[in-house]
Amino acid sequence: MADKISKRNKELLSNLRNLGDNVVRDFKKNLNPNIEVPSRTLSNVFFDKVNKMLALGDNTVDRNYFNLAQAKKFMQTILIASKLKNVLTKGNTVGLRQLFYMCKHTLEGLEENTFDDQDESDPIVEDIEGILDALREELGIFAATKGKLAGPLKLRDKGDLINTGKLGSSGYGIPSIVEDNTIQFEDHNAKFVLVIEKEQMWNRLNEDKFWKKHNCIIITGKGQPARGDRRMVRRLHDELKLPVYVFTDMDIWGYYIYSVYKQGSINLAHFSRKAAVPDAKFLGFKTSDIKRFDIPKDHWIKMNKGDLKRIREISDYDWFKNDAKWQKEFKRLKEFGHKIEQDALVAKAIKFTSNEYLPAKIQDKDWID
Amino acid sequence: MADKISKRNKELLSNLRNLGDNVVRDFKKNLNPNIEVPSRTLSNVFFDKVNKMLALGDNTVDRNYFNLAQAKKFMQTILIASKLKNVLTKGNTVGLRQLFYMCKHTLEGLEENTFDDQDESDPIVEDIEGILDALREELGIFAATKGKLAGPLKLRDKGDLINTGKLGSSGYGIPSIVEDNTIQFEDHNAKFVLVIEKEQMWNRLNEDKFWKKHNCIIITGKGQPARGDRRMVRRLHDELKLPVYVFTDMDIWGYYIYSVYKQGSINLAHFSRKAAVPDAKFLGFKTSDIKRFDIPKDHWIKMNKGDLKRIREISDYDWFKNDAKWQKEFKRLKEFGHKIEQDALVAKAIKFTSNEYLPAKIQDKDWID
Repeated sequence: MADKISKRNKELLSNLRNLGDNVVRDFKKNLNPNIEVPSRTLSNVFFDKVNKMLALGDNTVDRNYFNLAQAKKFMQTILIASKLKNVLTKGNTVGLRQLFYMCKHTLEGLEENTFDDQDESDPIVEDIEGILDALREELGIFAATKGKLAGPLKLRDKGDLINTGKLGSSGYGIPSIVEDNTIQFEDHNAKFVLVIEKEQMWNRLNEDKFWKKHNCIIITGKGQPARGDRRMVRRLHDELKLPVYVFTDMDIWGYYIYSVYKQGSINLAHFSRKAAVPDAKFLGFKTSDIKRFDIPKDHWIKMNKGDLKRIREISDYDWFKNDAKWQKEFKRLKEFGHKIEQDALVAKAIKFTSNEYLPAKIQDKDWID
Repeated sequence: MADKISKRNKELLSNLRNLGDNVVRDFKKNLNPNIEVPSRTLSNVFFDKVNKMLALGDNTVDRNYFNLAQAKKFMQTILIASKLKNVLTKGNTVGLRQLFYMCKHTLEGLEENTFDDQDESDPIVEDIEGILDALREELGIFAATKGKLAGPLKLRDKGDLINTGKLGSSGYGIPSIVEDNTIQFEDHNAKFVLVIEKEQMWNRLNEDKFWKKHNCIIITGKGQPARGDRRMVRRLHDELKLPVYVFTDMDIWGYYIYSVYKQGSINLAHFSRKAAVPDAKFLGFKTSDIKRFDIPKDHWIKMNKGDLKRIREISDYDWFKNDAKWQKEFKRLKEFGHKIEQDALVAKAIKFTSNEYLPAKIQDKDWID
């Protein structure tokens, strides 16, 4: 493992060095130094039908030094790349905010700052991911954490052996960096991964020890998942060959969260090939569950204009547009005109979700894929 | 331990039963049923100079059944109390959102809902805390989690023995319910608790194994802490007799976060006596650190009007107003006119905070108390 890591680090360091060397070479030859940055605009994002996930196209944008409109971004790119080289060389990790401060200073003799705001440095880090064909996480840059998991899974995190089935009410907090130089799976007895949209539902299922009774790993990204949460689901799927079921609210926002786990997100299209799980199944909550599980009107919440607008938008996305099952579901959701949250299931009975809803859904393969 | 728990549960159940019995008795006597609810308005919040923390005064509000303006809230209070009794009897826990659904329904024969929104049910839960003189957590009601910790501390969480010094990059996620029926401290080798405002700084210190070198427990509440995070700090202080140092950004928002750990918050004044740590020390970042640690101008951020307004407000709070040390610090902060974030320290050197800043501060007792 250690050899593999250092091999990848060496590769990344060498790529970073090449980036700098090329610029220096161009300067020496009196050429206009140029960096080719993969474009991350919407027009370069497409749904890759073969791999069934979002991807970036081949468009690149030139970033030139001798160009008034590009010179500042050129400087910022080189500056961040050089700091990333430091971090990687030392084998440390730093946060996105910390990286911003490492790069922020007033240029000597000028009033101009290299960076005024983190909103400027974060996108450059994503540019560099594209330039190097690497993840920010591989470069040692972390962001805020969000999700957690529990289950019959032992993993190693920075050398510590952690039994995620022995972490009480807390669970294992999914770190920002879930690459294989930090996290290794050691042993498991799981049959599937259950992704749960909301933390409160995860807590209920954890208290019921749902994961123990059904030999599964329960994960929540607390709404929209962080990158680390998506990467964790993907690695559990790839390396442990576990099917992934996603359980969200019955509303368009929940359905979209499912699609982020499955196909990826538009903003992070370049990340899909490391994080998407195209054969993830949507377990629910879905419109046919209302009758099947007799959800009382008391717990329906009327949709507003924003919900309806979002249904129109999402049903038109390429990865949903030609999918008859999903078009049908969107139509039924719109006609029903109400949302139902996961938490409403707890009102039927505290352990209803653990003892009835989920077992029935999984048993009958009552999902949309 | 088990006996103690069941004793407290019995006490709470008996109090809940009395609440209902009194209402029934009044009905039978043709009296107007009434519940006395401790007032949580600002006018009933005061700074308790003896205990050095925020507290609620003795004002109560009557909630009558035969009163048009109060009947709905009366019904809501009894309804939530009865559901809490169910939860407590079964020994389960449920989330605030789930509790809302357990109580939400359309009244038979009427168009009226018991609750339309969780914004109505959450304050009633806080009312019931006051009525019963109990914590929501003791009643088995959880909310979102936030913070995490690491250190030479073994604790038991729902029976699982967890070594919080063996949890890799993740750390121990602090649950919403940190009462002694869920969490028990087993063994430790810590000399102090270091509370860190921001998660990214916690991550850096955890990676540097700061807690190992200095025998301490590092905790972050990720900005404004959740109730569970505050309760955890208090219990570590009370039960393990550990001093508490708080490390925040050098801005009025960071100083206020310190005061929440120390004296409590206005909105949750009734919670202070279970969560405040009046002798917590403020380690920094503070104005005298700028010169001492030579923080370059590059990393100062100019204050805006909102920052300045907040300094005026906070310096006028009772628990700061008569404190000469803090009045001096507020004055210096205002005159300096800039903020400095914890993360800026990382720009000096990746391990500067672990190797220089914090050891020097603690060694010299360079804090404000």
